[in-house]
Amino acid sequence: MSVAVALPETMTAITIAAPGGPEVLLPGPRPVPAPAPGELLVKVEAAGVNRPDVMQRKGLYPPPPGASDIPGLEIAGTVVALGEGASRFKVGDRICALVTGGGYAQYCTTHEATALPIPDGLSAVEAAALPETVFTVWSNIFERGALKAGETLLLHGGASGIGTTAIQLAKAFGARVIVTVGSDEKAAACLKLGADAAVNYKTQDFVAEVKSFTAGKGANVILDMIGGPYIQKNYEAAAQDGRIVQIAFQQGAKAEVDFMRLMLKRLTHTGSTLRSRPVAEKAAISAAVVEHVLPLIADGRFRPVVDATFPLSDAAGAHARMDASAHVGKIVLTVE
Amino acid sequence: MSVAVALPETMTAITIAAPGGPEVLLPGPRPVPAPAPGELLVKVEAAGVNRPDVMQRKGLYPPPPGASDIPGLEIAGTVVALGEGASRFKVGDRICALVTGGGYAQYCTTHEATALPIPDGLSAVEAAALPETVFTVWSNIFERGALKAGETLLLHGGASGIGTTAIQLAKAFGARVIVTVGSDEKAAACLKLGADAAVNYKTQDFVAEVKSFTAGKGANVILDMIGGPYIQKNYEAAAQDGRIVQIAFQQGAKAEVDFMRLMLKRLTHTGSTLRSRPVAEKAAISAAVVEHVLPLIADGRFRPVVDATFPLSDAAGAHARMDASAHVGKIVLTVE
Repeated sequence: MSVAVALPETMTAITIAAPGGPEVLLPGPRPVPAPAPGELLVKVEAAGVNRPDVMQRKGLYPPPPGASDIPGLEIAGTVVALGEGASRFKVGDRICALVTGGGYAQYCTTHEATALPIPDGLSAVEAAALPETVFTVWSNIFERGALKAGETLLLHGGASGIGTTAIQLAKAFGARVIVTVGSDEKAAACLKLGADAAVNYKTQDFVAEVKSFTAGKGANVILDMIGGPYIQKNYEAAAQDGRIVQIAFQQGAKAEVDFMRLMLKRLTHTGSTLRSRPVAEKAAISAAVVEHVLPLIADGRFRPVVDATFPLSDAAGAHARMDASAHVGKIVLTVE
Repeated sequence: MSVAVALPETMTAITIAAPGGPEVLLPGPRPVPAPAPGELLVKVEAAGVNRPDVMQRKGLYPPPPGASDIPGLEIAGTVVALGEGASRFKVGDRICALVTGGGYAQYCTTHEATALPIPDGLSAVEAAALPETVFTVWSNIFERGALKAGETLLLHGGASGIGTTAIQLAKAFGARVIVTVGSDEKAAACLKLGADAAVNYKTQDFVAEVKSFTAGKGANVILDMIGGPYIQKNYEAAAQDGRIVQIAFQQGAKAEVDFMRLMLKRLTHTGSTLRSRPVAEKAAISAAVVEHVLPLIADGRFRPVVDATFPLSDAAGAHARMDASAHVGKIVLTVE
């Protein structure tokens, strides 16, 4: 490890005191981590808040082996030290990064392969809102789901961080987008971002709405983080040769399903998680993001949507807002 | 329609008198069909028997619109007339063909795009055993499932017509093959055909056997026609990034499933049926079969396995044998 600036030995970070509600997220002193070979040490300016952090807080999603027990999967900030062999960035570079944990802290390590330069014109808060959603959307909707121009994307959770990113990217690549949301306010926000149709799942049947919107054909790609009863409904709402990509199960992973439609429509039901993937796979997604997504930021067609910011010390407040599910876009922690 | 030889007006064909057991299959007179544009009229020498015929006999699988109500999805014989514009074959050519129905008859029409020349060295009976299984295996295991050399295929129903074809083709393309079967006799037959391992599902747990055979990794591709409780087990038996292709549901299409493994392993669960696909898609599969499979027949690495033959008039006997599930390979009707 080559240290280029004087670094403190301790920092403030968020610890999960015990599985529970937002109040278990407590700021306190922790050692500043050292970058392993190929890693960067980053002085964090902002850290994104994500659903997996909530699951981890509840004790339902333990960090993978080798990852920090401090929550937080994405950061933006300044490189302050390089691990052995790290060469893509230099001390002083401003980056945002997908990390395996540890983001809710003043300092955080990241593998250099999952770091991106902060795009011109984005604030640190906006940049911290980028990695998790962009990596997730790119790898699941465009790679795994193979969404093509002219096709229809059904996007559950349209107002979430992933949703607001997916709307913009899918539109930029020429697809039509139908979202499901839980309120008319969220519907309006999604339509403003470019969604072609928004379904309030509390008052409307999304299967019927998708059929109606697509002249009976159904959606070519469905991004689902709900699971449970949505799985059968997704099979109904999907078009012939449709692809359904599962990225979470907010209503449970178990369901009684009739698979006849999967066979008769030649559907593809698949899914993935980001955190557990090897660095090489994340690096490949990162390269695709640099090639395909960063130019859309540069030309103004995509910009992460930030719902609210909270100081690091009030991570509990940030989680309470996510638990309430009233947000549109990303919730971000600011770090001093 | 250009008729080149004198044709009778009526023929003997099998009618499904009413939904029921094998005894409802009754031979009787029917009009000789006329080839539509792009079609061939074939004097049938042999016709393959398939599971969908059994489903149709039971009233559970009605013929698609436009298809004959006479059962039978594959034939071998001699072209005796050409429909308007048909140009790939000429009167007198000996062909085998995938048909949308009508195979259990002295004469049958087929689109020219789903007909293949009878490969050198194959009898009409062997050629009639070819189209349904080869089209199914190629399109589902190699195209949809993307089986690659060095990967492991788990094949349910290893002793079936599809199974005996899939074993030979997967081995020819460099994959390892594990089959499930319902008797030790069938296990021995599959091993003799080249399978690397055979699991008797009546006495062994196929999930444990697959894990053991693959050093814990699981199967890369699974071809399943069982469904029901197998669906969850397939998710357990599959490797990371595994593909599960559903071609039937002999134990039902409904199941209570935990989809967590599908997401965590990044599985792909998909499926297809052959009969309902448009001619253009069948033609594409046919072209791939000509390119990739027929050479394996020519060089002796693949030969359809025929279990037994029955005369057309005893279609009931052929179905009774299939219902008993004691066969290894294909059951074929011979037609005079």
